[in-house]
Amino acid sequence: MSKGSAGPIERGYIGVGLLGMGVVGTGVAEALSTQGSLLEESIGLPLKVQGILVRDAGRSRSSLVDASLITTEAKDVLEHPDVDIVIELMGGEDAALPAIRGALADGRSVVTGNKEVMAKHGAGLLAMARAKGASLKFEAAVGGAIPVISALERGLTGARVQTLRAIINGTTNYILTRMAVEGMAFEDALSDAQERGYAEADPSNDVNGTDAVYKLAVLAMLAYGSPVSPELIYCEGIGNLAPRDFRYAHDLGYAIKLLAIAKDIDDGELDVRVHPAFIASDAQLAKVDGVYNAVQFDSDLAGELLLYGRGAGSGPTTSAVLSDLIEVARGLTGRGGPRPRHTLSAAGRVRPIDELDFRYYLRMTVADQPGVLAAIARVLGDASISIASVIQQEVDETAGSAEIVITTHRSRESALRGATGKLTSLDVVREIGSIIRVEE
Amino acid sequence: MSKGSAGPIERGYIGVGLLGMGVVGTGVAEALSTQGSLLEESIGLPLKVQGILVRDAGRSRSSLVDASLITTEAKDVLEHPDVDIVIELMGGEDAALPAIRGALADGRSVVTGNKEVMAKHGAGLLAMARAKGASLKFEAAVGGAIPVISALERGLTGARVQTLRAIINGTTNYILTRMAVEGMAFEDALSDAQERGYAEADPSNDVNGTDAVYKLAVLAMLAYGSPVSPELIYCEGIGNLAPRDFRYAHDLGYAIKLLAIAKDIDDGELDVRVHPAFIASDAQLAKVDGVYNAVQFDSDLAGELLLYGRGAGSGPTTSAVLSDLIEVARGLTGRGGPRPRHTLSAAGRVRPIDELDFRYYLRMTVADQPGVLAAIARVLGDASISIASVIQQEVDETAGSAEIVITTHRSRESALRGATGKLTSLDVVREIGSIIRVEE
Repeated sequence: MSKGSAGPIERGYIGVGLLGMGVVGTGVAEALSTQGSLLEESIGLPLKVQGILVRDAGRSRSSLVDASLITTEAKDVLEHPDVDIVIELMGGEDAALPAIRGALADGRSVVTGNKEVMAKHGAGLLAMARAKGASLKFEAAVGGAIPVISALERGLTGARVQTLRAIINGTTNYILTRMAVEGMAFEDALSDAQERGYAEADPSNDVNGTDAVYKLAVLAMLAYGSPVSPELIYCEGIGNLAPRDFRYAHDLGYAIKLLAIAKDIDDGELDVRVHPAFIASDAQLAKVDGVYNAVQFDSDLAGELLLYGRGAGSGPTTSAVLSDLIEVARGLTGRGGPRPRHTLSAAGRVRPIDELDFRYYLRMTVADQPGVLAAIARVLGDASISIASVIQQEVDETAGSAEIVITTHRSRESALRGATGKLTSLDVVREIGSIIRVEE
Repeated sequence: MSKGSAGPIERGYIGVGLLGMGVVGTGVAEALSTQGSLLEESIGLPLKVQGILVRDAGRSRSSLVDASLITTEAKDVLEHPDVDIVIELMGGEDAALPAIRGALADGRSVVTGNKEVMAKHGAGLLAMARAKGASLKFEAAVGGAIPVISALERGLTGARVQTLRAIINGTTNYILTRMAVEGMAFEDALSDAQERGYAEADPSNDVNGTDAVYKLAVLAMLAYGSPVSPELIYCEGIGNLAPRDFRYAHDLGYAIKLLAIAKDIDDGELDVRVHPAFIASDAQLAKVDGVYNAVQFDSDLAGELLLYGRGAGSGPTTSAVLSDLIEVARGLTGRGGPRPRHTLSAAGRVRPIDELDFRYYLRMTVADQPGVLAAIARVLGDASISIASVIQQEVDETAGSAEIVITTHRSRESALRGATGKLTSLDVVREIGSIIRVEE
């Protein structure tokens, strides 16, 4: 069955079909329900959910989701005449691949977070989308909210990627961080990750590197412009690492990370692999800890680039799906490319610095005589500025002066300015050398 | 004068006009000349430069630039009937603002790296572009090749930015890094930056914070959807910092960075400022050193995101201009949004891991008896694997075993696999505990 004849502009809205209603699907459905007017402002037309495919119709759902839209029949969503954009969040390959293919074949655009499908079939699906004039977007498939797909598609189009190194599995990075920092055994760190919800009940796809392989296949396809089959990517998991490997690594000046690596080597061949690796402990990637992800590119023109953020979780993944959805929807309304979230109309009100609160660092040159600190403390106290720490040192005996460094608790900028005016007028204060705000 | 009647598709190419022929302008012109076929493949039509505005027609130019296109008359470029996209790289406000306005008024799209114009007039120019159905892109205005404009326009559209903190001036970050690491005085660090080409002969716009203010105004406009006038942004430069401020900061657990900060505070007001700030020395931004830039976002859905890279220089800035140019050009050919640089056709050839070279870390449990290390070294030597370091420790006396850790020089994976097979068969080697590749 083909797409309905009326386009979104004639119809007055963009029809959305949702496949899958897990944590991310629910987050997307809730955002469509609660942020409708903001989305409409940004897109130019309202988004209307036409159907939601679930596995179990009986399960209780978020109160923000219209129960009449729920179905267990894929065709209710995929063949609905008013669905312009299909959001696929089922995961896995079996049901998702035919659904994405079917949607694209009908000329509907697709937003997906499915790394397995994109890794195995991405090039063919992108070609299909292009042939049908539809969009296929998958920012959520790699690195959660980190805009790495967008960077490869857009930001780096003018540059040639030489090397790509990434930490793209939060579960294993959390486990490795616990093993490195606390000397935990692999099994204990894994149990801890499971208790915190950072690892699934069956963690094998994360632990053995398969998840990272899928993501690397997607990144390498975009970076090097040719499909890289996941089976060709060398893969080793983290299950064999012992706590003492981390101690030796530390002594030798390294950290151990599960790295996903893709390099363009001399004669047009690619070096593509996922395995635990020693990396110099002062390298940027060595400092990426816990559930965070990071992707580092080296390219001819742009030099080194690193993108860092939360690589998984419902919030970041929902954010990635929404940004893809907005972009595809803008394309359908002919809004011609990206634009800021809000209409740029009213000038933002900027609060004057005098009305803001900060902690401060103050460095003063003072007379080296008794009672100086008390005099300074009195001026600050009168202005309701309380002292957090004091350092007094570097006495210059020939000048008869000393240096005092004070850090304050949070204080109003106007109060500090008044107080420094008074301090400058004290006989015992020779100079206020520096006033620096602390950014917390 | 209005845009020529024939569109790029009827005409068979996209006409480009270049305003300004400094380092970046030359880089862009050279890329258009040398990478024409790659660009055409990606865009669908060739790009043809129709005119290049320069200040001094007599100056010698890159041999890759067609001298017949050079002009000192802005109208030769701006009123050329076949210019679809104007690339403005003149800098400053005086000539650039009317040029950008004129181009947009004629419905031509504009790519610019002009932070001053975008900071002062960005909202109005974006509105003008939208009204005329033209594009206005400015990735090169902030953070060089770091795709921060793209992230704000696209990646974060689904999320609400709460706080934005950035190091967006490479000159001052280089100076502060020298002052912190080597205890240099400000003046000495500035001279050093000038000698290395990291600071201009007149460095005042960098040193006093003006450059960062312009960039922050652009970022805040996109993050918060309303124009933020640069005059409303509180600004302090780095000229008053003394080397001992960095020593005190270090002792107190802080780094000093020139931060550009924008926060959405409680009642819809913005806190927007540029000044030297103490930040905790374990914070991500504290570790951004030298000429590098970084922009950190905290948002409701996406959590923390950090983008890091070279914030200036001809390569990164040229890369940013090219990626904007490609995106605008794709829009003109109706290629419908971003796509990978190359056609996804031929599968990339992946070199098997056996044919790659690595340094290795090997951990083995061995018999605690004389001659063991010699036996191991012989096996490795026979396989042409040379040893970089050896650690022997943790003797288990009851088991009569010891642990040996070896790191190797670069060796072929196949050789290492052969050698470890032989090591395992040695009587004195009880177990090979770990083999981990070193990523250099």
